[in-house]
Amino acid sequence: MRSMASSSSSKGIAAIVGVGPNLGRSIARKFAHEGYVVAILARDLGRLSRFADEIAREEKAQVFAIRIDCSDSRSIREAFEGVLSLGFVEVLVYNAYQPVPWHPSNFSDLRVDSFEKSLAVSTVGAFHCAQQVLPGMVERGRGTILFTGCSASLKGIAGFSELCCGKFALRALSQCLAREFQPVGVHVAHIIIDGVVGPPRGPPATSLQRALSIGEPQQRNILGRDPAGSGLMDPDALAQTYWHLHVQDRTAWTQEIDLRPLSGPRLL
Amino acid sequence: MRSMASSSSSKGIAAIVGVGPNLGRSIARKFAHEGYVVAILARDLGRLSRFADEIAREEKAQVFAIRIDCSDSRSIREAFEGVLSLGFVEVLVYNAYQPVPWHPSNFSDLRVDSFEKSLAVSTVGAFHCAQQVLPGMVERGRGTILFTGCSASLKGIAGFSELCCGKFALRALSQCLAREFQPVGVHVAHIIIDGVVGPPRGPPATSLQRALSIGEPQQRNILGRDPAGSGLMDPDALAQTYWHLHVQDRTAWTQEIDLRPLSGPRLL
Amino acid sequence: MRSMASSSSSKGIAAIVGVGPNLGRSIARKFAHEGYVVAILARDLGRLSRFADEIAREEKAQVFAIRIDCSDSRSIREAFEGVLSLGFVEVLVYNAYQPVPWHPSNFSDLRVDSFEKSLAVSTVGAFHCAQQVLPGMVERGRGTILFTGCSASLKGIAGFSELCCGKFALRALSQCLAREFQPVGVHVAHIIIDGVVGPPRGPPATSLQRALSIGEPQQRNILGRDPAGSGLMDPDALAQTYWHLHVQDRTAWTQEIDLRPLSGPRLL
Amino acid sequence: MRSMASSSSSKGIAAIVGVGPNLGRSIARKFAHEGYVVAILARDLGRLSRFADEIAREEKAQVFAIRIDCSDSRSIREAFEGVLSLGFVEVLVYNAYQPVPWHPSNFSDLRVDSFEKSLAVSTVGAFHCAQQVLPGMVERGRGTILFTGCSASLKGIAGFSELCCGKFALRALSQCLAREFQPVGVHVAHIIIDGVVGPPRGPPATSLQRALSIGEPQQRNILGRDPAGSGLMDPDALAQTYWHLHVQDRTAWTQEIDLRPLSGPRLL
Repeated sequence: MRSMASSSSSKGIAAIVGVGPNLGRSIARKFAHEGYVVAILARDLGRLSRFADEIAREEKAQVFAIRIDCSDSRSIREAFEGVLSLGFVEVLVYNAYQPVPWHPSNFSDLRVDSFEKSLAVSTVGAFHCAQQVLPGMVERGRGTILFTGCSASLKGIAGFSELCCGKFALRALSQCLAREFQPVGVHVAHIIIDGVVGPPRGPPATSLQRALSIGEPQQRNILGRDPAGSGLMDPDALAQTYWHLHVQDRTAWTQEIDLRPLSGPRLL
Repeated sequence: MRSMASSSSSKGIAAIVGVGPNLGRSIARKFAHEGYVVAILARDLGRLSRFADEIAREEKAQVFAIRIDCSDSRSIREAFEGVLSLGFVEVLVYNAYQPVPWHPSNFSDLRVDSFEKSLAVSTVGAFHCAQQVLPGMVERGRGTILFTGCSASLKGIAGFSELCCGKFALRALSQCLAREFQPVGVHVAHIIIDGVVGPPRGPPATSLQRALSIGEPQQRNILGRDPAGSGLMDPDALAQTYWHLHVQDRTAWTQEIDLRPLSGPRLL
Repeated sequence: MRSMASSSSSKGIAAIVGVGPNLGRSIARKFAHEGYVVAILARDLGRLSRFADEIAREEKAQVFAIRIDCSDSRSIREAFEGVLSLGFVEVLVYNAYQPVPWHPSNFSDLRVDSFEKSLAVSTVGAFHCAQQVLPGMVERGRGTILFTGCSASLKGIAGFSELCCGKFALRALSQCLAREFQPVGVHVAHIIIDGVVGPPRGPPATSLQRALSIGEPQQRNILGRDPAGSGLMDPDALAQTYWHLHVQDRTAWTQEIDLRPLSGPRLL
Repeated sequence: MRSMASSSSSKGIAAIVGVGPNLGRSIARKFAHEGYVVAILARDLGRLSRFADEIAREEKAQVFAIRIDCSDSRSIREAFEGVLSLGFVEVLVYNAYQPVPWHPSNFSDLRVDSFEKSLAVSTVGAFHCAQQVLPGMVERGRGTILFTGCSASLKGIAGFSELCCGKFALRALSQCLAREFQPVGVHVAHIIIDGVVGPPRGPPATSLQRALSIGEPQQRNILGRDPAGSGLMDPDALAQTYWHLHVQDRTAWTQEIDLRPLSGPRLL
């Protein structure tokens, strides 16, 4: 049920739910880089364990791989027993959603159980994961919950009702939780990714290079990584904004932010 | 399973799902008044049958009461077998939602199955009902689907995540269906009711008086029904706008409209 | 300065500002048809007078043509001296905007004075016209103000900043006035027309035919006017919704509504 | 007309328009701290010069104070002649707006010229400033334009039509420019500040302390600056997010972000 790449810790935990090779992995790496013990959760434990090993090695961090099926309440509870046993979960990032075909589906061809599954993963899973970590956050008066949305969070799209309904509902959850829990110190934010996330770009950077790159926008602009490029979003760049949301001062918290590429398939 | 207050008909059917004593009943009455055969659906068949009898008698219309449990796919299919056996369903109005307490709930106290039930009624039920009627509408190139939302459709509210998630998702469904089906002649609209719907106001009007009242706004203003009144919304007045949406010309269709009272508990 | 097609009246006045051959004319005709004395206002008094004569004759109504330049405060004040001399202005419809090219302009090519002119007509003109009629409406505790928006009211469009800034600001004005004046009985609504308005469709209908057509949506659907047609919006159909907004009961007022064609150039 | 606290520079310039003692000053300080030559612009040159001296001294940076009246096109052109003479303007932050009373005004009491002035400062001034700097940004294929909005950017408020109309229009401008210029490398973002900005909090930090504080959210949380405090937003904290927007990678740009305090007068 659980694969631990490293031993437990007394520091706050960052739990990243829904970790594939792009966005989830980059967010996990960023929080590991910044000194967090990280738990990464997804269905494919084999792949997840490889990510955990890789991040642990590169960032000299503690990274735990824990299997979760976000459409299954029991699986969520069991997974978070594992996460919570590691210590205080200070950060929850929820990326999970039921993959849908890239082409629109005829509404009449959709099956009710498939529609229900999509809501289960996008919305009920987020609800349930938030319930696991909020008591600890409320007790300590701090914590960050970040929900990943997309263009389908804001606008219905013909042929994508499964995705849109789940993502609209997730946005509602984010707003409800923000209004209930921000006054007691828990930051809840919703990130709308309006584009297609690719693999991390550019030359494999050392941790040090990666750390330094932040302060030098001009230089990165001059280097011109992808100015007229693929149109894909760099997950390492997205992870910088997830991190920024986490470190925002509590007098200036963001509830919703959008992110999109300079070029490429803009959806909103 | 089914209580028919009148015999079948060759005309188009208006199916109203989620019929209580206020909004659903007034919409049913309006469509009956305008000559439609009406099917009203809800869980409480006893009360529903009394509404059907009352509307049938007052409007000299055919009104069918059919039991439905919108959280149950089988119940929806069986109910719509009944509705579709009456003829072409030209109008679907979906009002159903899982009642929530009027006071906010602590998020930690919510049960996952209660959250799922709310999504099932607000969203999955709407999805499933739409699937029952759309093939007939597409075949004929006409039809109207009206979804009832509320202030919780647009804005998360602390302590109301069950309601908000279901209603956000319903709005997504409405937008997706509009974009897929309006080009083939099916009008899909989302009505945001930003207030509390009360019982019909004023003196019991005859059908004739009710019909005439529409053309005389000044007079109704002069009569001053509720200018500084209860703050409740008159369901008969709401039903006028549902009807207007149905009769809109296809070069000028509304996708979303809000409705709120002059005074009273404004939520948005 | 003023051309009166008919003598004064003791009834409420409907003032339509921004009247060209399509939308404004159809709205004016609808209110005339429903028994209102109508004042139509635009810059081109010659054309306006022909519209006034035509509507007066066809609808057997009183229609006044009054010249206005909505970018000029003095012109607005003078025009409304004329309108207010006719009686209580019960309805104000504000359609005026500064025409922009149909193709996007390079931002760098826009002139500041042109940008200012667009704001003057879209926003300041609306502000000023509303100020002329609100005191009378507040005094009587009734009245309707309808502002015409478009897709540029909701979403910035590359190359159309003049239009978008003016229309966003007009939407703000609509919301501010609704919140201030609805509690005292003045209905303020914003209509978002998401499409291109063409000339009135179909065979020239007599007033009687036009009046009857409302109650027969099926028949109009069967007649199939423009099902896969031009994509243009019928201004007579739009005018029906303007009228519906005016006659809405005060417990169920719309603040914002969108309108778009079944087919054609959908902008939102 | 112009007061230079320091000599010219070959690096990119950050121009901050609308600099008072809170937000504008903190943004200027942040960009100075990060190594930018900064031009600060406002109407009160005396106060502005004191800010320039203070920031120049504390951050060992070049800071130029330049008088501007954002309601006056000539003043804007002259001010930017000064700014552009300093070098390439890489960053433009536009904060200016016409101050309004904190209490709602009766719509009938507003003067047209006051309404026009508000649009002139909030919207036309932003339009004009953007026109000054965009050619240089387009030529180099990089640059950042940040517009400051507030809760009045999203929602009309009774008694605040001057503010709301100007701020809605500014948001439109932001969206139009983003869609036109992001594809050529210019990042345009709109920041919605939903709260009241106070003076910088806490002990006067040295530059070094300020620089270090970013990486230690837990510590700042533990220090508990203002957890149940004044409800005011810390402008230094806001400036961190302005800076983050500037350094976002071009595959993951934000167009709109909101910021609000944990507690205090939440307006949206």
